[in-house]
Amino acid sequence: MRQTQLFTRTRREAPKDEVAKNAELLIRAGFIYKEMAGAYAYLPLGLRVLNKIVGIIREEMNALGGQEVLLTALQNRQVWETTNRWSDEVVNNWFKTKLKNGAEVGLAFTHEEALTNLMRDYIRSFRDLPAAVYQFQTKFRNEERAKSGIMRGREFLMKDLYSFNVDEITHQAFYDRAKQAYLRVFDRVGLGGETYLTFASGGSFSKYSHEFQTVSEAGEDLIYVHEAKRIAVNKEVLNDEVLANLGLKREELVEKKSVEVGNIFTLGTRFSEPLGLSYKDAAGVSKPVFMGSYGIGPGRVMGTIVETHTDDKGIVWPESVAPFAVHLLALFDEAGAVKAAADTLYENLTKQGIEVLYDDRDVGAGEKFGDADLIGIPKRYVLSAKTLQKGEIEIKDRATGVVTMKALSDL
Amino acid sequence: MRQTQLFTRTRREAPKDEVAKNAELLIRAGFIYKEMAGAYAYLPLGLRVLNKIVGIIREEMNALGGQEVLLTALQNRQVWETTNRWSDEVVNNWFKTKLKNGAEVGLAFTHEEALTNLMRDYIRSFRDLPAAVYQFQTKFRNEERAKSGIMRGREFLMKDLYSFNVDEITHQAFYDRAKQAYLRVFDRVGLGGETYLTFASGGSFSKYSHEFQTVSEAGEDLIYVHEAKRIAVNKEVLNDEVLANLGLKREELVEKKSVEVGNIFTLGTRFSEPLGLSYKDAAGVSKPVFMGSYGIGPGRVMGTIVETHTDDKGIVWPESVAPFAVHLLALFDEAGAVKAAADTLYENLTKQGIEVLYDDRDVGAGEKFGDADLIGIPKRYVLSAKTLQKGEIEIKDRATGVVTMKALSDL
Repeated sequence: MRQTQLFTRTRREAPKDEVAKNAELLIRAGFIYKEMAGAYAYLPLGLRVLNKIVGIIREEMNALGGQEVLLTALQNRQVWETTNRWSDEVVNNWFKTKLKNGAEVGLAFTHEEALTNLMRDYIRSFRDLPAAVYQFQTKFRNEERAKSGIMRGREFLMKDLYSFNVDEITHQAFYDRAKQAYLRVFDRVGLGGETYLTFASGGSFSKYSHEFQTVSEAGEDLIYVHEAKRIAVNKEVLNDEVLANLGLKREELVEKKSVEVGNIFTLGTRFSEPLGLSYKDAAGVSKPVFMGSYGIGPGRVMGTIVETHTDDKGIVWPESVAPFAVHLLALFDEAGAVKAAADTLYENLTKQGIEVLYDDRDVGAGEKFGDADLIGIPKRYVLSAKTLQKGEIEIKDRATGVVTMKALSDL
Repeated sequence: MRQTQLFTRTRREAPKDEVAKNAELLIRAGFIYKEMAGAYAYLPLGLRVLNKIVGIIREEMNALGGQEVLLTALQNRQVWETTNRWSDEVVNNWFKTKLKNGAEVGLAFTHEEALTNLMRDYIRSFRDLPAAVYQFQTKFRNEERAKSGIMRGREFLMKDLYSFNVDEITHQAFYDRAKQAYLRVFDRVGLGGETYLTFASGGSFSKYSHEFQTVSEAGEDLIYVHEAKRIAVNKEVLNDEVLANLGLKREELVEKKSVEVGNIFTLGTRFSEPLGLSYKDAAGVSKPVFMGSYGIGPGRVMGTIVETHTDDKGIVWPESVAPFAVHLLALFDEAGAVKAAADTLYENLTKQGIEVLYDDRDVGAGEKFGDADLIGIPKRYVLSAKTLQKGEIEIKDRATGVVTMKALSDL
C-alpha cells in the first residue's frame, strides 16, 4: 500500500486521558482510535494486525474440528434467568437495553447460555456428539473502569469456543488438545516465549481451569512461574496443597505480573442441566451434555504484543501479525530517480506477493525514519540517491537493528 | 466438509412465530437460528454464505480505493447531539444503554457521526483528500416490528462506506464510480437480473439518492421499473417533474414490489459542518469536507437471494455465494463399495480446491435428496451402487434440474 493513500497519520501524542502504553502507542502510530474509554476503533493498520491474529486463531480452531458460527449480541432475558445470570447482583457488568415493547434485552458479555440453548435444536443422541462450535464476535462488558487500552474493553472482539461431549473422559481428551492448540496460537502470534500455561481456579467440575498468562508489567494478574517446566500458578490458587498436587516447590517459583491472554474452562453440566441440553445414550437414557469453554480476545492479544514488543522508538511487530512485511522508504532526490526506482521496486515486491507499505510521501528522511520505527514493520527497506547509485538497498531489521545491503537486482 | 461433522441438521418446520420466507427456509435448512425477532445467529452453512457475500463486497470496495476499518458500536452522546440525532424524537430506533457512572451511550444504527468525528484527526489539507473509508460492522436498530427475517434486523451486519472529497465535483466522480461498483456487487452475488438502479429522494445536497432495488414480493418498497433502461423510480419521488427530469414516460413504467439491497447518498456537508471536519485548500482557506455514504447489508442481500432464488423444494443458491460448490451424496450399499469410492472422490475433489459438502450420513436416499434440495448447493453429485458399477456419477444442476452422467475417472 502506498502511504500517501493511507488516510491515517502518526501523531505526536495520544489523547490526554490515555494511560495504557498499548493504546498510547497504537493511537500515535495510527492503528486505533479511542472512541471512549474501553471502546476503540480499528484503523486500516490496526485492522490488518487484528485480522492476522484472527486468522491464526481460526486456523487452530478449525484444526481442532471447530465449526464457526456468529451468534447475536442481543440476548433474551428468559434464557439467562434459567442459569441465574441475568440479575445485575450476580453479573455486575451487563449492558442492558430495551425493545420498543418495553422488554429488557442484554448485550452478551459471553455466550454459554445462548449457544447451549441453540444446541438443543441440534443435539439429540450420542451420535450427534462430540461437537465444537466457535465464533469471533463482539462482546460488551460494562467495566467500572477501563484503563488498559485494548487489553480490557467495554466492547471487544472475542473468540469463544464451546465443546460438547458425552462425558468427562471424552471432554478431557478434547480439552487437552485445545490446550495444545492455545499454546500454538500464542507461539504463532509471537508471545510463546513469555506465555505460561497457568493453573487457576476451577469450578464444580474440575479442580483447575487453565489460563494462558503473558508476563508483562501491564498485567493485572500475579502468577508464580516455574521456568523449567514452562508452567505457572495463579496467585489466587497458590497454596501448599496445590503445590503438592502439581509437584512444585515454592522456592522454584518466581512471582511475575502477567496478562491473561487466554482461558480454558471445564463447564461440565453447569449450563446444560438448567437449559436442558441433553442427549440419549446408546441405551436410550437421557443425559446432560458435558461442556467446556475456551476464550481468546484477539484485541487483548494485540495489546499484549504491543506491551511486550516495543523499544523507546515504537512498536516491534512479530512477523506473523505485522500489518505489512516490508516498509519501503524512498528518500527522494531532486532528479526523481529514487522515486522512479522505488515505484518500480514497490510494484515488483507487491507482484511477488510481499506485503509492502511504501512511504512515497513528500516528507523528509527524519520523519520517514521516525514513523517507520513507531509503526514497527519488521523489515525497513531504504532507497536513497546514495544506495541507488550502487544499485543497492539498505535493509534494517526492526527487532535487532541489524543493517544489511542488498543488490536491487536480487529483489 | 463431511455432513456427519456438521452439527446442524435440517428441520421440518421453522419456529411458529417466523413469517418471512427467507428466515423460514434458512432456519429449516440449518443456515441461521432465530435468537429473537430481528436477531438471528449464523450457523456454519449460513456464515459461509454471509462471508462469500462480504468477500465480494470487500473486493469491490477495495477496487474503489476504500480503506477498511472497524468502528465501535458504543457511541458518545455528545457527538450525536452535535448533529441533532441523539434525541429519540428525531431518531426513533436507537438502542441506548448506560455506563456504570450513569452516562448514557448509544448503540450505533449508522456511523456518519462517529467517522466524521474520527476523520478530524487525519484530514487537514486538500492533500489529505480524497479518502474513502468502509467497514463491515454490526448495527443495532430498535425496530418496532421485525418480521422480515434477515432482511430487516434489530441487529445486523452492514457494509458502510463514507467518502470524503474537497468539493461536489470530485465527490460526483467518486459517486458515479461507486454506483458502478454497486451494480457489479449485485451482479456478482446473483441479483443482477432483478436489481434496478432506483432514483429516490435526495437531500439538501442532491436532487436524488440512488437505491438498488431487487424486485421481490417480499419487498417493502414500491418502485416503477423502466425495463429497457434498467432503471426505476421509487414511488416516494414519482411525479411529473421527476419523470420529465429523467426522460421517462409514465406508461413505460411497471409497478413492482422490491427490496432495497443498497443505497448511496450524497451527504454534502450535512455532517462535516456541525462536527467541524474541514480542510485547508491550496490558498489556505478552510472549507468543510464534502461527503457521501454508501451502504449494503450483507444479511439483507442473503435474505433477498433466498426470497428470489427458491423453488418448492428449497433454496437455489447462485454459485458465487453458495456455501459449497458441490453436494456429494453417497447412497450407501451393504458391501461398502459406494462409501469407499465416495470417500476417495471427496478427498480428490477437496484436494483440487473444490468446496464439497459430502453427505456421508447413514440415512436413506430420500432424506439425502430432500435435504440436498432444501440446502440448495448448485451441483449435486450422486454416487450409488448403480452408477459406481458403470464407473460413473450422476450430476444434477440444482437450478435447471438437468441431469448428466460423468465418468468417475474424469473427476
